[in-house]
Parts: sequence; C-alpha cells; structure tokens
Amino acid sequence: MKILALHGPNLNLLGWREPEVYGGMTLEEINRRLEAQASELGVELTARQSNHEGELIDWLHEARLWANGVIINPGGYTHTSVALRDAIAAVALPTIEVHLSNIQAREEFRHRSMIAPVCKATIAGFGWRSYILALRGLVESLRPDA
Amino acid sequence: MKILALHGPNLNLLGWREPEVYGGMTLEEINRRLEAQASELGVELTARQSNHEGELIDWLHEARLWANGVIINPGGYTHTSVALRDAIAAVALPTIEVHLSNIQAREEFRHRSMIAPVCKATIAGFGWRSYILALRGLVESLRPDA
Amino acid sequence: MKILALHGPNLNLLGWREPEVYGGMTLEEINRRLEAQASELGVELTARQSNHEGELIDWLHEARLWANGVIINPGGYTHTSVALRDAIAAVALPTIEVHLSNIQAREEFRHRSMIAPVCKATIAGFGWRSYILALRGLVESLRPDA
Amino acid sequence: MKILALHGPNLNLLGWREPEVYGGMTLEEINRRLEAQASELGVELTARQSNHEGELIDWLHEARLWANGVIINPGGYTHTSVALRDAIAAVALPTIEVHLSNIQAREEFRHRSMIAPVCKATIAGFGWRSYILALRGLVESLRPDA
Amino acid sequence: MKILALHGPNLNLLGWREPEVYGGMTLEEINRRLEAQASELGVELTARQSNHEGELIDWLHEARLWANGVIINPGGYTHTSVALRDAIAAVALPTIEVHLSNIQAREEFRHRSMIAPVCKATIAGFGWRSYILALRGLVESLRPDA
Amino acid sequence: MKILALHGPNLNLLGWREPEVYGGMTLEEINRRLEAQASELGVELTARQSNHEGELIDWLHEARLWANGVIINPGGYTHTSVALRDAIAAVALPTIEVHLSNIQAREEFRHRSMIAPVCKATIAGFGWRSYILALRGLVESLRPDA
Amino acid sequence: MKILALHGPNLNLLGWREPEVYGGMTLEEINRRLEAQASELGVELTARQSNHEGELIDWLHEARLWANGVIINPGGYTHTSVALRDAIAAVALPTIEVHLSNIQAREEFRHRSMIAPVCKATIAGFGWRSYILALRGLVESLRPDA
Amino acid sequence: MKILALHGPNLNLLGWREPEVYGGMTLEEINRRLEAQASELGVELTARQSNHEGELIDWLHEARLWANGVIINPGGYTHTSVALRDAIAAVALPTIEVHLSNIQAREEFRHRSMIAPVCKATIAGFGWRSYILALRGLVESLRPDA
Amino acid sequence: MKILALHGPNLNLLGWREPEVYGGMTLEEINRRLEAQASELGVELTARQSNHEGELIDWLHEARLWANGVIINPGGYTHTSVALRDAIAAVALPTIEVHLSNIQAREEFRHRSMIAPVCKATIAGFGWRSYILALRGLVESLRPDA
Amino acid sequence: MKILALHGPNLNLLGWREPEVYGGMTLEEINRRLEAQASELGVELTARQSNHEGELIDWLHEARLWANGVIINPGGYTHTSVALRDAIAAVALPTIEVHLSNIQAREEFRHRSMIAPVCKATIAGFGWRSYILALRGLVESLRPDA
Amino acid sequence: MKILALHGPNLNLLGWREPEVYGGMTLEEINRRLEAQASELGVELTARQSNHEGELIDWLHEARLWANGVIINPGGYTHTSVALRDAIAAVALPTIEVHLSNIQAREEFRHRSMIAPVCKATIAGFGWRSYILALRGLVESLRPDA
Amino acid sequence: MKILALHGPNLNLLGWREPEVYGGMTLEEINRRLEAQASELGVELTARQSNHEGELIDWLHEARLWANGVIINPGGYTHTSVALRDAIAAVALPTIEVHLSNIQAREEFRHRSMIAPVCKATIAGFGWRSYILALRGLVESLRPDA
Repeated sequence: MKILALHGPNLNLLGWREPEVYGGMTLEEINRRLEAQASELGVELTARQSNHEGELIDWLHEARLWANGVIINPGGYTHTSVALRDAIAAVALPTIEVHLSNIQAREEFRHRSMIAPVCKATIAGFGWRSYILALRGLVESLRPDA
Repeated sequence: MKILALHGPNLNLLGWREPEVYGGMTLEEINRRLEAQASELGVELTARQSNHEGELIDWLHEARLWANGVIINPGGYTHTSVALRDAIAAVALPTIEVHLSNIQAREEFRHRSMIAPVCKATIAGFGWRSYILALRGLVESLRPDA
Repeated sequence: MKILALHGPNLNLLGWREPEVYGGMTLEEINRRLEAQASELGVELTARQSNHEGELIDWLHEARLWANGVIINPGGYTHTSVALRDAIAAVALPTIEVHLSNIQAREEFRHRSMIAPVCKATIAGFGWRSYILALRGLVESLRPDA
Repeated sequence: MKILALHGPNLNLLGWREPEVYGGMTLEEINRRLEAQASELGVELTARQSNHEGELIDWLHEARLWANGVIINPGGYTHTSVALRDAIAAVALPTIEVHLSNIQAREEFRHRSMIAPVCKATIAGFGWRSYILALRGLVESLRPDA
Repeated sequence: MKILALHGPNLNLLGWREPEVYGGMTLEEINRRLEAQASELGVELTARQSNHEGELIDWLHEARLWANGVIINPGGYTHTSVALRDAIAAVALPTIEVHLSNIQAREEFRHRSMIAPVCKATIAGFGWRSYILALRGLVESLRPDA
Repeated sequence: MKILALHGPNLNLLGWREPEVYGGMTLEEINRRLEAQASELGVELTARQSNHEGELIDWLHEARLWANGVIINPGGYTHTSVALRDAIAAVALPTIEVHLSNIQAREEFRHRSMIAPVCKATIAGFGWRSYILALRGLVESLRPDA
Repeated sequence: MKILALHGPNLNLLGWREPEVYGGMTLEEINRRLEAQASELGVELTARQSNHEGELIDWLHEARLWANGVIINPGGYTHTSVALRDAIAAVALPTIEVHLSNIQAREEFRHRSMIAPVCKATIAGFGWRSYILALRGLVESLRPDA
Repeated sequence: MKILALHGPNLNLLGWREPEVYGGMTLEEINRRLEAQASELGVELTARQSNHEGELIDWLHEARLWANGVIINPGGYTHTSVALRDAIAAVALPTIEVHLSNIQAREEFRHRSMIAPVCKATIAGFGWRSYILALRGLVESLRPDA
Repeated sequence: MKILALHGPNLNLLGWREPEVYGGMTLEEINRRLEAQASELGVELTARQSNHEGELIDWLHEARLWANGVIINPGGYTHTSVALRDAIAAVALPTIEVHLSNIQAREEFRHRSMIAPVCKATIAGFGWRSYILALRGLVESLRPDA
Repeated sequence: MKILALHGPNLNLLGWREPEVYGGMTLEEINRRLEAQASELGVELTARQSNHEGELIDWLHEARLWANGVIINPGGYTHTSVALRDAIAAVALPTIEVHLSNIQAREEFRHRSMIAPVCKATIAGFGWRSYILALRGLVESLRPDA
Repeated sequence: MKILALHGPNLNLLGWREPEVYGGMTLEEINRRLEAQASELGVELTARQSNHEGELIDWLHEARLWANGVIINPGGYTHTSVALRDAIAAVALPTIEVHLSNIQAREEFRHRSMIAPVCKATIAGFGWRSYILALRGLVESLRPDA
Repeated sequence: MKILALHGPNLNLLGWREPEVYGGMTLEEINRRLEAQASELGVELTARQSNHEGELIDWLHEARLWANGVIINPGGYTHTSVALRDAIAAVALPTIEVHLSNIQAREEFRHRSMIAPVCKATIAGFGWRSYILALRGLVESLRPDA
C-alpha cells in the first residue's frame, strides 16, 4: 500500500513560523515521524511540499497512477481552492484532510473548508500528531480486516 | 489517567439509524472497542450517552473532579448549543470533538460547530474509528514523552 | 395502527397562554378530541407532552418499537433543534409537523423549521383543528386503500 | 357555503409531471375528489386552474362577490408573487395555502412563501390529500359549531 | 402632450380594499380627478388598469408610439418585476413611479423597488394625491419653460 | 399654516456641486421659488440649512412649538441618522421627505432611508421641483377640503 | 425534428430597444436567420414571442406534445420566475437558455438565473448569434451521430 | 411579594469557572447576597439553578402560580432558546434578564438575545451586582409608589 | 467621587415625546431624582444633554480631567456612532450605557449597540429607573468595599 | 486569424474524471475536434492546458502578441481567480468562457463566475460541443461579414 | 499651493489615547511636523481638528475657495458618514484619506470606508508618518513635473 | 538595509494595460524610480515580478534570510489569497501593501484585502508614486531616529 502525503503552502517553514500556533517541529522531522509510522504500519509513504497550487494538483493527478490514498494539509488553499477540490474529486483516491491547528478556533475565513466535502475525513488540532493519526486512520480504513 | 467519552443525542440508535451515513456498528460495540484501546494505552475510560443537553452538561461538570480529558461527539448539539460550549470552556479539560460522518460534506447547517472553538482538536469522517483515533490522539498529547 | 402525538415545550399551558395566538382550548381537551378522532378512524393514539428536548427525543426513540406514525408539535424547538430533527430522521417513522398558529405570519425566526425537511407533511394555522387534520391525513396516507 | 379552489401554474400537468414529486393523479381526478368531499360537507366547490398570475388575481377578485373561502395552490407563484399576496389580503376571504409536496424539504428558494403570511393556514406534503384536508379544515373552521 | 397612467395589480379594488392603508377612494374617482388635473394642465390622459404583468408591458410598448410620458403605480410588481423594469427602460419614455402608501414604512420586502432605477422620479405616501402630484411633476418637467 | 423647510448637509452648495446630479439652481433660488409657491398656497414658509445633524434636530424640536408641517431633504443623513429619525417621530409633525435626485437609481447605500418610515410621504427625482411638489402635497393633505 | 424558439418579454422591441446592449437587429430578422439555420440543419422551427409569463408557460406545455427541444430567451423572467422554471422541468424537453447580452457583466440581479438549473445548457453574449449557436448546439446534441 | 431567581446552565460553576470573565464569587454567595437584598426590600426570594432547558421552563411554568416577578440569567440559552422565550411570554410575569459579563463585548453569537424581547428589562456587565440591581429594579417597578 | 450623566439626542423631549415608549417624566425630573440618588450615595453628579454628536464627544473628553465615571444614554447615536464609541474608549473612564426602553424589543436596527462593547455595563428597559440603577451600579462598582 | 484555446486545471483528466459530469471524451480528442473545426473555419488554433493559475496568466499575456481571440475553460479558477480576470481584462482580446457542464445547475459556489464579466460571451452545458460552439461563435463574431 | 489638513473626532486626544494603537505623539507635534514638511515642499498648510461632523463639512466647503488639496483623517466618521463623503465629492478637491493605524487589521466595522471611494488615495498604518507621506504624495501628484 | 519589492500578477503589463486605471508607466520604469529612491535613502532594493502565487510565496520565504522589509503589490491575489497572507505572517518581516489604483473606489470584490491585516501599512491610489511613498514610509519606520 502506497500513500502520498501532500504539504501545502508555508508548511516548509514549520518550526520557524509562529511556533505558538503551529508547533516547534520542522517539516523534515514530521516527515521522519510519518515515515516511521508508515513502516510500522507496513505501508510506503511519499511526502512532498509545494507552495504552488498547480504543483499540488499535478502531484495529485500523478498519484492516481500509483497511490492508494492521500493525506493532505492544503494550508491556505483549504479555504479558497476550487481547483484543488476538483483535483481531489477527479482523482478519487481516499483522502484525509489534516491541519496542525484547530482551524475552527481561528479567524472566521478559516472556518470554511473547500476541500473537506470531497475528503473522506478530517483531523485538526493535534499539531504534528494530526499527521500520524491521519495516516493510521487512512491505512486502517483501507484495511478494514487488519 | 482517566478519560470521559460523551455520546450526545441519537447516538444510542447507532447500528440501527441511517447505516449508510453512520455505519452499522452499535454504540455498545464502539464503547467496547474504545475500552480495548483504552486498556492498551493504559488509561481508564468511562463512556456515557444522553439525549439531554442538560445531562451532558452535568456530566461534564462532574468530570472536572475526576477526569484528565474528554472525547465528545455532541451529535446535533454540535451546531446549536452555546450552553454545551460554555460547559466545555468552564470545565477546561482537554477535549476532543468527534464525528462519525464528515459533517463538512453534509447539509449547510452542519458546517458550523459551536463546540470546535473550545476544543483542542477535531476528528470527523472515520466512522467508529474516529473515536479510537481521538482517544489515541488525546492520550498521546497528554503524555508527550510517552 | 398506533400513533404517537408529541406536544413540545409550553403546550401544557394551552388555554391559559396568549389565547389570542394559541386559542382557548386546553391540551387535555385537544387530546380528548384527538382520541375521539383516533377511535373514529380505528387507530390507537398515545399523547405525551414535555418541555425537555431530550425527553421528546427519548420518546421518539421508543416509538420506533411500537408506533406506525407520529404527529408532533415541536413548539419552540421547531426552529432550533438539530437533535430533534436527527431523531425524526433516525426513527424514520412517517411524521407530521403540526402548529396551532400560522408560523409563517409571525416573527422572522419562526419562518425556518429545522424539522420540516425530515417530516412527511406540515399543517399550520387551524388552531386545535391542525391536530385533527394531521391525524386524519397521517392515517389516510398510511391506509391508501381505505 | 361556497368555496373557490384555485390551482396555479403547471398544476394542469399533474399526473404527467415529475410523478415522484407530485404524485400520479391528474388535476381532473383531484377536482373530482374535492367535489365529492365538498358535497359530503354540504358545500359548493368551484375549481379553476391558470398559468397566468393575473388571471389568478382576477378570479380572486371576483370571488369576493360570491365565495365564503378559498383554497389555493399558488405553485411557483408561492415564492415570488407580491401581487397575488396583495390580492389575497385585499379580498380578505379566509384562505388556505395548499402544496402537494413538502416544500420545506426542497430547494432553498421554495422555503419562503410570500403567500403564507396572508393566509389563515397552510397544508403541505400530503399529495392530493393536501387539498381534501384543506377543504375540510376550511369548512370546519367556518362552521365552528358544526 | 399625451400621458399614460398605468395602474397595476389590485388597484381596481381601491376604495374597497384595506381602506386604512390605501384610502377610501375608488379607482374611477382617482381617474376622474387625474383627468380633471390633466385638462387643467392642458394635456391628454389615458388611464388603464390590469392585474396582468404582461398586459402592463404590452401597454407600455404601445405607448412608445403615442405617449409623451407615463405615470405608473406598479402595485405588487414594483418589488419583483424585472420584465416591467426592462419594458420601462426599453420604451424610454419619462416615467414617474407612484404609490398611494409610504412603502418604506411597510414590510421589508416592499422597501426595494425594481422599477425605481429606470424611472425619472418617485412619489409615495400622499394617497390619491400621489397621482395628482406625479402628473403635475411630470408635465412641468416636460415643459420646463411653462 | 406654517411650514418648516429643512435642508440637510451639502445642500448649501447647490448650483455649484455636481450639477449633472443635483441641477444648476442655487439653494437661494429654490427657497425663493418655495416661498412663491407658499404664498400662492397662502401658507408661511421658513427655510433653514445646516450641515450639522444636531442643529437639524434642534430646529425640528423647536418646530413642534410653531409649525404645522415639515418638508425635509436630509441629504447624506437620510441613510444613516437614527437620531434624526427619532426627532421626526418625537416631534410628530406631518413630514415630507424630499430628494433632488432619484436616490434609488444611485449607489446601493443610498437605497435605504432611515427617515422614510417616520415620514408621511416621499418625493424624489424631480430636481428642484421635488420641493415644490412636496409643499403642495403637504399643504393639500393638511387642508383636505381646500 | 421540431424545435420551439420562445422569446420572452420585451424581445418584440429588438432593434428599437437599447441597441448598444441588445444589438440593432429586429426579432423578425432573428427569426428569419433562425429558420434559415433550421432548414440548413434539416429541422422545423416554430418561433413565438410573448410578454406574458403565463402564455410562455402555456406554450411550453403544448410543446411537450409536438417538440423535440426548446431554445428560450426568458428575458426578465430569467431572474424571477419559479413558475417558468417549473414548467421547463415539468415538460422535460431538452432546453437551451439563450441571452443576447452577457448577463453576468450587467447588474447584480441579472447574475442569478432561476431557469439555468433546469436547462441543458446556456449561451449568452453573442448577440443574435446566441440563438444560432443555441439551435446548432441543441440539434447536434439531439443527433449525436450526425 | 415573591420573586423567582433562575440561574441557567454552567452558573453552578461560578467562582470556579473563568473568573476573569465571570468573577470569583460562587453562586451560593450570590444567592446569599440576593436574599439579603430581598429581605431588605421586604420581598421573598427563591433561587434555583439548572443546566436543563426543560427544567428552567418547568420552573417558569410553576412560577406563574406563586411568583410576582422573575429575574433570570439564561446563560448559554440566552442566544438559542425559542422554547425559553416562549415560556417567559406564556407565563407573562414581569421578567428581568441578567448577565454577569457584558455580552455585547464578547463573541458575535452572544450579541443576539432571544430572550430580551419578551423581558421587561436587561442588566449586563456588573458582575454579581447585576443580580442585586435587577432585584432592586424589578421590585421598585412593581411598587411604583414605594 | 464625581459622575457625569450624559443624555443624547431627543432626550430633552422626554415627558412630551411618545410617552407610551419613553414614559411621562421630563428630563429635568429625571435629573432631579438622579441628583437625589447621588447625594444619598455621597457622590457629585453633573448632567448634560445635547443633540450634537460632536458636543457629546467634547464633554466626554473634558470629563477625563474631572470625572470618575460616566453614565450615558446615547439615544439614536447608540446604533450608528463609531466616533462616540472611540471617544468612550479613548477617555477610558468606567462607563455605563443606559436606555429607558428595552431596545432589544424594538426595531431590528436598534438591536446593535456600537457603544456597548466599550462600556463596562448596560441597563435597559426600566424607564427612568434605568438611570438610578446605573448610578448605583457604577458607584458601588467603584467602591467595592463600601 | 489565430485563436488560443486555454484549458484550466483538471481538464487534462477529461475522459477519466467523473465522466457522468464531464463526459467520456479526452482532452486530446476535444483538441483534435477543435482543430478540425478551426481548419474548416480557416483559422489557426493553438490549444494549451495547465493546472497552474500563473501559467494560464503567462500564456494569456503572450497571446496579446499573436492571437486574435481566446476561448477559455478556466475550470475551478472560474469562481475564485481575480488574477485571471485581471489578465483577461488587461490583454483585452475577445474572450469566450466555456464550460463542459451547466455550472448553474451544480453547487452554489459554482454559480458565480469571476471571469464572465470580462468575457464577451459564455457557453456552458453542451459537453465537448461547448468548445466547438464557442470557436464558431468567436470566429463568426470576429468576421461579421463572413 | 495651499493644503488643508483635517483631523476628525478624538484625534485631539492623540498622545494620551490608547498609545499602543495610535502612538505617543500629540496632535500638536504631528501638526508641527506636517508644517515642517510643508515648508520643505514649499506649500502652505492649514491644520484643523473637530469632533463635529458638521464642522468638518463646513471647513471642507470653505476650502473649495482657497485650498488646492486636502488630507483628511476622518476618524470614526470614516465608516459611517455619507454626509462627509458627499462633502468631499461636492468640493471636488484632490483628497487623501489618512489613518494612523492599519484599519483593515482592526474590528470588522472599520474595514469599510465610506470616504475612500471619493478620495484620490489612501494611506494607513504608518502612525504619524501616514500624514507626512500623504502630504508628500498629494503635493507631488499636484506637481507632476516637479 | 535591504528591501524586497514584490510585484504580483499582471503588473508586468503596466504601461500597456488599461492605462486609464493603472497609468502609462512600465514596470521597468517604476523599478528604475524605486531604485533611484532606494539609493537616495541608502538602502538596497531587489524587485521581482511573478504571475504565480506560489512563486511570490517562495520569494517571500527566501526574503526572511536576507531582507529587512518588503513592499508588495499583490495584484489580484490581494482579495483571494490566504496562502500569501500566511506567507507574510510566517516570514514576519515588516511589509507594506501597495496599490496603484484606489481599490476602494472599484468593484465590490476589490474592497476586501486578505493581505492588509498582516501588513504594517497600506498605500493605494497614487499610481506609481504609491511605490515610492511605500519605500520611504517603510525605510523611515525602520530607522526611527534617522
């Protein structure tokens, strides 16, 4: 089983950027922990980050040819991107929306997710652990008998 | 470590009610799996269900005297209850909001959660697994070194 | 055939409360007339009133084990209760929404019914006769050949 | 006692039009049943249908000279016609708004009735039986002692 | 100089309809007074009434061939009719919007006029005198030197 | 009979200010024509202008001791001033709202009048003639037999 | 194959009315070009125009007995008519919505089409060519192999 | 004279809950001070608290049989409960709405009170003194000559 | 201790203006009672009234040099004045907002107070007693030990 | 004559993606048909697709140097991209907006087009034929005498 | 060249009022720096402050007789004053809107400026330097060759 | 001191694009003037332009390693980009938002800036001078003693 982990805009600054909101762990460290969790679950994980909406869409398109599921933190595109939403719907892989912070407790414009309605599930607010839980949840859903 | 699992209105009908939305597992079975997960994590879990907003608030109040954290599926009160929100804020225990279905993909009035802004984190859309992931996430957050 | 008639909050004050809006007949008298109509139609009617949202939900849940249909005047919960709506949808009995007054001719906030979309039909504005018509309509719908 | 039954736009297509929404009975058959119910109640019923807003208004105006009450299914004009609303208010006959389908369970723009606030009562969702119940309710309200 | 006076839906009931809102004078009497005013001003007045939106539009279209100006009380179509608005704009005659009552002091939905933006001027709230003032104002505007 | 004519903010610039919107006549000239019309009607007219909301309110308060009616062009305060509205309601003199331009054909924020609901009538769009018509309409309404 | 071309309110004034918005060609000329295109495509075209909402509905109803498709320019009824929308849905013929001007580039209230959701397709902004393209598009869709 | 003091949800946690918002005084202490004030004013005070909407309604209903007035802090139900509003209107006792904090200075959803329109008066923002002032104000209003 | 009592627009008409809304007592009488209450509490009270927004702001500015607290009834400026709000925030004296009537039970536009969020507390609906209670509440808050 | 056909995000997946919404034809096949139509019309067509908003803008900028017109299906950027809208306006080539599906019949957020107001015309709902019609319409508009 | 600098309500308190928002410099000091900058640019500056909306309007009116441009900080009137907006439009001098703080980063109601659409330009957020930059920008725009 | 000047989408067309809105100067010329101003102020300026949202974000990220401040004209992304907003907040350099035109005087959707709340200050409407003033303002703020 192969999983794509997509990190959206500004997540490359993790550890450096507003640590009181996003935590002090870097993206590299999060990816390392995700990979550790992946190998514990016996799945293969590929992690990519981009600040470009179009590049995130390109990668989602490619993933339909090799991946079994996606975990995505769309960052700021969460609230605005119809194109990303359409990409997730088009690719039709089981997809989990992930957020480090509890977006419902932040500014009004962060309360609406354009992405959520085409995702299978959402996890927000656990910091870096949101990713780990999303990976577990996705893999366990895809292997109901495991 | 002691955790309260609160199930809100209509969740007692699980397994019987609209299984295409909420899944085919009964609340008893979910609670059994939650307890199994709890004992695996070495914590004590108490699960309660009520259709009464006031009773859910009473139980949250009591929990401040004995619990270390709460996982709550507020059901229909998610979208309407200021009183429940105030109770969670007043009790000030780390609280995880849980939903079986992906509420952002349902009717417009289910997109707003009155509860989310006073919770630590939210998980929605994994069916009964939402509870398991919430319990793991809550316990691991409370034991950062574990 | 067994029918549950559910009266929501403040309906116990009927006859006493704002008679120019709700009419001068007590709830007991309405129930008596409903029962007379029921026995004329050859069905069994059980009438209950509560000011507690949770108790109305509990009774709806029980009704799925014994009733063939429901007529409900949700009073003030009409406009606010997602939990009651979910209960009606979960129980999945044919349900008729009843109002004594013409709620569309009253305050703006009474124009939206959270309950109507999960009910089979709605009757409003005939005073106590709304209940009688609802009972007739429900029973005749359930016995299309009668 | 004389009653006008007014059928608005597109109701002439009943039985032919979207039967899963509006039922399979023709308008002629509904009128026949309405007349049977009318003669059972000892009242005289005149039924008319038009797709023209202005013609419905004309007929309402005439009715003030001969009718004791009106039952009206304003079809699509329900949600848009201030002119029809003003006509009902001007004519000042007791008027019952009728809908075959449960309009509150349909598209958002069907939730608002311009007509309801000037009507005595509303019945929606019983299919063709909505008309029969409306006629009964209207006549019984006009003969309180009967 | 020739002026068309157009009366919209329900104005044929004037004198009979809600006299506390619209006054006790009949449309015939208003037309008589309008004609008296017209001959005093040395202009020719043609008055027509219809409850049909389409007929009002037809008459406006014809008026472009013979009239120098229009005074129109669009009744309930004031707030809803894009078609009537387009007709006034298309015909491009100087047009005065008239209302008997002060529509801004009535229900919310009467505060918006679809017609006003394509009219030269508006008069509302003087009862039958609104028409007389509109006629004077229109004629005096068209004869600036008079 | 004594009438107060109140001119609100920026009207002192008439003739100089955006003549394509407000016309080329000065306020002095309009007042002269108003006085001519007043003496023709046999009434006494006092005209005042201020850019100060409070001063307009003060003058309205004084007018309750000497005037029989008011014509007011509240300028920009039309759309914002609850205080002016309350003053008109408090003084309770018959009051006519006047506008030079057709405010419904201008920016969105000019479509709502805070003042209109407490006025007897409104005239807009006739340029300086709006004032003359308002004076005639007011005086004729106050002398119904004249 | 038979096609109904329906022209709504004010389109009879084409060529005369606001030519900078709607072009300088008359409706007769547009119909002539539509017929030429129809005979080129080997289909029969019947064109009708009315300013009456009800008449447009009547014609749509009749068309279900003889036509294979409809192209309609609903004019001002586009934005307001639920009755016309219901007629299109009831008749269930493939229907193309046509506009001469680009309605999305005009006033806010022209941005919403009540009709579009029940049409197969929409063409707007090509002037009289909108009709020709609509006819081509409709016929080619109905003859996929042609 | 007998007064009911009703405390809504979460007020039992006073002194313990977010003291920077609600103050450090317990509900027992507030009730003690209320009783002291009551006996100083020569009236009898009964204080009750519940987290259950239905129970608050039940107590209001009972109060119509024994109380002369009510002071109520509806807590979170202030902003959501039509049922509580209807209960206050039905019971028709002079009722004062009380809040510890200045709710207009808090979250947007706390700015609307469903309860205020059926209350005689409102006091908010004086902390525990809000209750004392409400009691004084209520009693002095009921004894205008005292 | 010195207190400023500020009365906003139209309050000079008290006793004369709509007594069914505002009561029959004049502003002079209210000020007399306020002064009596002040001297009973051992504080000095200065009362001022103006219809001018700017003058109310000027007086607030001066008060920062001599007053210990403010009670203000901003009248119609309550709902519109950002400038007054900024003045209260800038002066930073403890300020109580007072209303004679229960503004939440009146027109929609009176439900929003621009002033409340920068005030310490609000009292509305007790008629002239609102002022007395506000003075007591303010003084007692400023002397917590008294 | 040279035409640019721009395909926005996710259109590269055509034929593979939700065929019940977008049809079963690939983008390559659509482009082939477009080119066939182009050569039949005697124009040169260049087709490009990108998932990157910026790349679409870059190509539009270049097109101002070589193209005579543009047909664009902006995909998900239709509803959100001010930058793309500004690019179309800046480049100022005649531009036709194309959609495969009838976007007005889909989710609410797809009803608003940011792009339409700066386009000459819009075609939606004909599937792949939308492109062919757009090309014909554009070319025929640019060659009015042809 | 002569420039009017207008300071609106509460700006006389600068240096004293909320220095964390508005800075610690007094208005006198700001005016001194403005004058220094003015003489450096070779222009004449007149600075005035008022808390009275009407007085600001009066001064703008006078300025049309002597000034070449205006810089204005309308304070709280920015968001509410149609009268001030109309004054700026009427006077038709090039006008720069100035704010000390970044109003877009403050409360929602400060995001809308009624004044901006009639100003040439806006500067906000530089503290007292906003004025200096506004003066430079205004003068340099008026002397394009300098 | 080093400053990054970022130009967003479509600004590469300056001088060519709608010169009546954006002026006739090219971006190269603006950059030349910016550099002249920079060297006059003794700072180093790097200017970059992109139509790609992601590229603008990438450059902002890099700038945190070398720049002391940013001036940004986000073009169309101003109103839509949460990702760009998050980038500015994450990088946490003092940032000035710049617009050539007065965006508050243009279409409604240009009135909201997603970017402004995370910027230090905003300048709009001075044409190319907006950049020069922004640079001066930024540098002078960063060197308060200079």
